[in-house]
Amino acid sequence: MTDQNRYEETHKIEYYETDLTGKATLSMLINMLVLVSYDQADHFGVGTDYMLDQGYGWVIAQYEMTIKRFPRDHEKVHLITEATSNNRYFAYRQFFLKDEQGNELVHIDTICVVMDLAARKMVAIPNDAVAPYHSEVVKRIPRLTRPTTIDDSEATTRKDYRVRYFDLDTNHHVNNSHYFDWMMDALGEEFLTAHELCHLAIRFENEVRYGHVVHSDATNPTQNDDGTVTTHHRISGDNERYAEATLTWRPLSASTTE
Amino acid sequence: MTDQNRYEETHKIEYYETDLTGKATLSMLINMLVLVSYDQADHFGVGTDYMLDQGYGWVIAQYEMTIKRFPRDHEKVHLITEATSNNRYFAYRQFFLKDEQGNELVHIDTICVVMDLAARKMVAIPNDAVAPYHSEVVKRIPRLTRPTTIDDSEATTRKDYRVRYFDLDTNHHVNNSHYFDWMMDALGEEFLTAHELCHLAIRFENEVRYGHVVHSDATNPTQNDDGTVTTHHRISGDNERYAEATLTWRPLSASTTE
Repeated sequence: MTDQNRYEETHKIEYYETDLTGKATLSMLINMLVLVSYDQADHFGVGTDYMLDQGYGWVIAQYEMTIKRFPRDHEKVHLITEATSNNRYFAYRQFFLKDEQGNELVHIDTICVVMDLAARKMVAIPNDAVAPYHSEVVKRIPRLTRPTTIDDSEATTRKDYRVRYFDLDTNHHVNNSHYFDWMMDALGEEFLTAHELCHLAIRFENEVRYGHVVHSDATNPTQNDDGTVTTHHRISGDNERYAEATLTWRPLSASTTE
Repeated sequence: MTDQNRYEETHKIEYYETDLTGKATLSMLINMLVLVSYDQADHFGVGTDYMLDQGYGWVIAQYEMTIKRFPRDHEKVHLITEATSNNRYFAYRQFFLKDEQGNELVHIDTICVVMDLAARKMVAIPNDAVAPYHSEVVKRIPRLTRPTTIDDSEATTRKDYRVRYFDLDTNHHVNNSHYFDWMMDALGEEFLTAHELCHLAIRFENEVRYGHVVHSDATNPTQNDDGTVTTHHRISGDNERYAEATLTWRPLSASTTE
């Protein structure tokens, strides 16, 4: 493993990247980490514009993340990405968020694919888009934990979300970061202020586009042996499943809620 | 006017602060400009934490803004704020966004008030919260252009928005920046990709809180003599008006849409 496939930036968390308790939101953490991978691609001359010119866009199809602690308003963090390995269709990319002292707060493994933007489907990764990283070329990329599939009888909460104009990105579909908000928002304020996310596995199946109304379904929290609780999530349309996820939460004691 | 009441920072526009055409969104511009006023307050030791400790929060009650050009992804900008003047209840604060060459792209005048967070109502501005700025103390602060009030018969488009957990800020109400998204989103993709906002007057009347569902009403665009078009907006609940705004738009020629 060389340093050539790693890229690092520093960032200061600002108030508009945090929730009402002053902790960075997951969607903003994803935004800022993905930015580092965009900047790495730009650095190698194979960034968003280069891909768009060929009618392509990178899409993250699957994430698995472990969160030790959410950084807070005003905190300085190190954002690191690594293009670890790839095969013909899939690229395995890791992200790390560290505090000023170098302690790892967030670790994310992702599986990325390239989409043909006109045909709206996955294509083989163009060689020139990955060659500069000197990532390891492998036969099989690592498997990430798959979220649990839930059916209608298991979902106990449903909230609907209409896709908004400002949810769209340059790929003309809903940016990944909004799915996290839809899933978590469905759990409600009481649960969200009493729990902190510690693990997430999410898999994107179909893209959500302008005009869609999505259903965000969630199960009741189930208790784990280590004191954490787990919720299962599904984002779907009337005839399509867009994404599913399994989230694990650490209960916050009353004194640490704020 | 001294320099003591001015504060400036630089910022690079990132992809997640832009829309699908790569232009900074209004809500993110507001977020980053307001940040500079927060940082100015922190610099003087009278920031958000200081206010929260006393049970207070600053709220922007009214904006008037003129936008010459929206900065684009990767563009470096100067963000400037000035605590210009105040009387017992109102503070007049200006914001300026300039490009790297110092050209003014965005100019915003605001009227700010202090809210008692427990009583949820406006109070006289505490002396210690404004003293460090040495703003001019005036009898009357400047009047900003008031938006036009519309009634149900004039509103031709209505979209509803449920307040989400992640819309809330440390004042435990919906952050101002979300109102802009609700108002503009109601106009739809076709209008938004063919027009660029050039002037906005908005007045906030009542705060929106968690669990509320708001109606975002908009009028049909009306043609102005100078080629721009105007839309009038209202954000309301079933028994309450939360905000109203008048927006003026520059039509984009097909070649400049992207």
